Amino acid sequence: MERTKIAIIGMGTVGTGVAKLLLDHGDRTARHAGRIPWLDKVVVRDITKPRDVEIPEGVLTDNLDDVINDSEISVVAQLIGGIEPARSIMLQLLESGKDIITANKALLAVHGPELFDKARQLGRCIAFEASVAGGIPIITNIGQCLTGNQITSLRGILNGTCNFIITQMQETGASYDDILQEAQKRGYAEADPTLDVNGADTTQKLSILSQLAFGVREDWERIPCMGIDTLDIADIHFADRLGYRIKLLAVANLVDGEVEMSVSPTLIKKGNPLAEVQDAFNAVRVRGDAVGPVFFHGQGAGQMPTASAVVADIIDTVVGRSQITFNNLELWSESNRPISMADANHTVDRYYLRMQVIDKPGVMAEITGILGNNGVSIASIIQHKRENGSSSETVPLVIMSHETTHGSIIHSVSEFTQSDNIESQAVVYKVL
Amino acid sequence: MERTKIAIIGMGTVGTGVAKLLLDHGDRTARHAGRIPWLDKVVVRDITKPRDVEIPEGVLTDNLDDVINDSEISVVAQLIGGIEPARSIMLQLLESGKDIITANKALLAVHGPELFDKARQLGRCIAFEASVAGGIPIITNIGQCLTGNQITSLRGILNGTCNFIITQMQETGASYDDILQEAQKRGYAEADPTLDVNGADTTQKLSILSQLAFGVREDWERIPCMGIDTLDIADIHFADRLGYRIKLLAVANLVDGEVEMSVSPTLIKKGNPLAEVQDAFNAVRVRGDAVGPVFFHGQGAGQMPTASAVVADIIDTVVGRSQITFNNLELWSESNRPISMADANHTVDRYYLRMQVIDKPGVMAEITGILGNNGVSIASIIQHKRENGSSSETVPLVIMSHETTHGSIIHSVSEFTQSDNIESQAVVYKVL
Repeated sequence: MERTKIAIIGMGTVGTGVAKLLLDHGDRTARHAGRIPWLDKVVVRDITKPRDVEIPEGVLTDNLDDVINDSEISVVAQLIGGIEPARSIMLQLLESGKDIITANKALLAVHGPELFDKARQLGRCIAFEASVAGGIPIITNIGQCLTGNQITSLRGILNGTCNFIITQMQETGASYDDILQEAQKRGYAEADPTLDVNGADTTQKLSILSQLAFGVREDWERIPCMGIDTLDIADIHFADRLGYRIKLLAVANLVDGEVEMSVSPTLIKKGNPLAEVQDAFNAVRVRGDAVGPVFFHGQGAGQMPTASAVVADIIDTVVGRSQITFNNLELWSESNRPISMADANHTVDRYYLRMQVIDKPGVMAEITGILGNNGVSIASIIQHKRENGSSSETVPLVIMSHETTHGSIIHSVSEFTQSDNIESQAVVYKVL
Repeated sequence: MERTKIAIIGMGTVGTGVAKLLLDHGDRTARHAGRIPWLDKVVVRDITKPRDVEIPEGVLTDNLDDVINDSEISVVAQLIGGIEPARSIMLQLLESGKDIITANKALLAVHGPELFDKARQLGRCIAFEASVAGGIPIITNIGQCLTGNQITSLRGILNGTCNFIITQMQETGASYDDILQEAQKRGYAEADPTLDVNGADTTQKLSILSQLAFGVREDWERIPCMGIDTLDIADIHFADRLGYRIKLLAVANLVDGEVEMSVSPTLIKKGNPLAEVQDAFNAVRVRGDAVGPVFFHGQGAGQMPTASAVVADIIDTVVGRSQITFNNLELWSESNRPISMADANHTVDRYYLRMQVIDKPGVMAEITGILGNNGVSIASIIQHKRENGSSSETVPLVIMSHETTHGSIIHSVSEFTQSDNIESQAVVYKVL
């Protein structure tokens, strides 16, 4: 059987998983590729470091040029995270004639246009199934399987760390900080989890999916984003009593030729499959105008689920499917008329509001007055009792609105801050 | 933009949907294909029949030769159901050099080996995403996206009509016969629903998925199959009280190098995503050794979901992905060592048993004795009371077993039939 020489750059968690699949299950990959995807080189910083996988002699190297200068290596899995040196290496690899597989969503979200243009110029391709929701083949499903459709909406739970933390808060009643520490101890959260918990990771993934599904070419940092790092256990409890769970939800909806996009903690009715996504799992719900709703659920991260996506991309690239897909998708291409992101202020949603208010007559009238003046119609309002033994003068007030614009809610909240009867900033979450 | 001429054979529900997508959304398909999939011919039996879609002049024909003899038509969506003339037309199309898209699972389940061999000999390809679970791209997901994995198990709700009937029985408490009549009135069930409700349709789909996932080359009629046509509302109620829902479940598990396969009404714990699949929806749960569990949910049938799958296949074929996939999958190929179907008697499952027994002392001892002698261990046993006012001498006895082999259960049930204290045949369903 013929061989196609491939290389891996970076032997972190995912790189190690990919090497395991290629080395331990070469028969499998060969059967699906019709030839042997032959792991010829693995580039690492320190070749003396102990590894979880036995790399055959002569494969491990700390010299990128061993790959760059070997014209027989045509397919490279570039598995270094972060922006640099990942970007420079990617450009070098493209220039030396390699087709590339990557799992690096930050790099694509930030430098997608540059990298994809470069690949197109050079007649190369970039495959990136592993960059979003590792264990769910969502890139291929949107970019290939649902091409008979106009995608009209996309909703995803795309960050396993956040979903793990929220699930644990829900189940144990412990605070965000306590659960985060526990997650870090158990290896479910990074030592520096900032990009996970502040929503940046989810937003980068949403920007990739939105480019794919709608052709939105928008700086990911302009997508409205709220993380879970300010999530209060109180809101999980109040949501629970109302029949909802809170999830960090990425949303993109096609409305009047523009795409509404956001990432934020969102109340989702129990029983909705998205509300039932537990622990570090991911889920994506796509709606197409022909197919209707399609729901995907799987492991979002982790060594082997992500390696599964990378190896599928390796096989697709070895057999030539990736090249066809890459050429036809024209992602981040100048030749496509980009679809605009809609003005977030006009987005219509239902909202959950929670604020601490002084427990005295007239306050409710003041709050409902402000909402009414801003055109926000109230679905329910619950003033909770002061907790037994609490010396606080304030009580929590929870409001569920009917559908209203984001702008109206933001106006209302800014007026709340001017009232002496409302303590601190109101919590504002969307309701799905 | 260049054109690829395509043809549709058959303008039933699905053919009409495909024509709609190609004619009304040509911009969309062209964007994804990088060229125009041009609907050049539509072959029907009666060109005078009124259609739901406006077919441009010169496209409609009742002469298959208009397609066969036009060497510029290279891609054909063959959307005629049943075995003949679908099979002969398919062979003719292959011989005249066409790549084929089909939604015909019965044809593939019965004549897959012949058709795939013929296509391989002639250097042509067959794409069949629409043949299983129309709105769920399960064929591409297994055949392409999860190729880094050994699939270890596969569970599916694959027949929308059955799931609709069961859901309605569950919700309304009406009998199978009443719901079926209602479903037929509303167009959810065929005038002759035999192949749906007796499980044949589900079994044919399972045989296709098992060929794809495991390489099982087994006559679909040898797969153990029980339909929902004997499903009693009483069992739905008893299951419900025990915390389960009954679904018509297709199962394939890789065990010791063989594949256990079956289609049968199965008790699934509430909360399990498969238990929550409602109405005419389909769902598939695939487990891969790298990716873990991946769950898919979508519309299983219907005009536009199925058309969505056909059009994705048309685009895949026009751009050349289908050809690559077809060549590498080697489905039903003589060159593959086929994996065997396991002996159903050795399959280990938990079981639900329900029988009508004479309400007198000693009966319980007799039944538990028979089960014990056959090595069946009991998890719970509930002897329900005689209904108020019932003059029947018998009462329902419901038993949940621990894990046991199918053979042990079958032995036990055959011994039950010899007892004077047990009325009629015991109902035996698997428990997931």
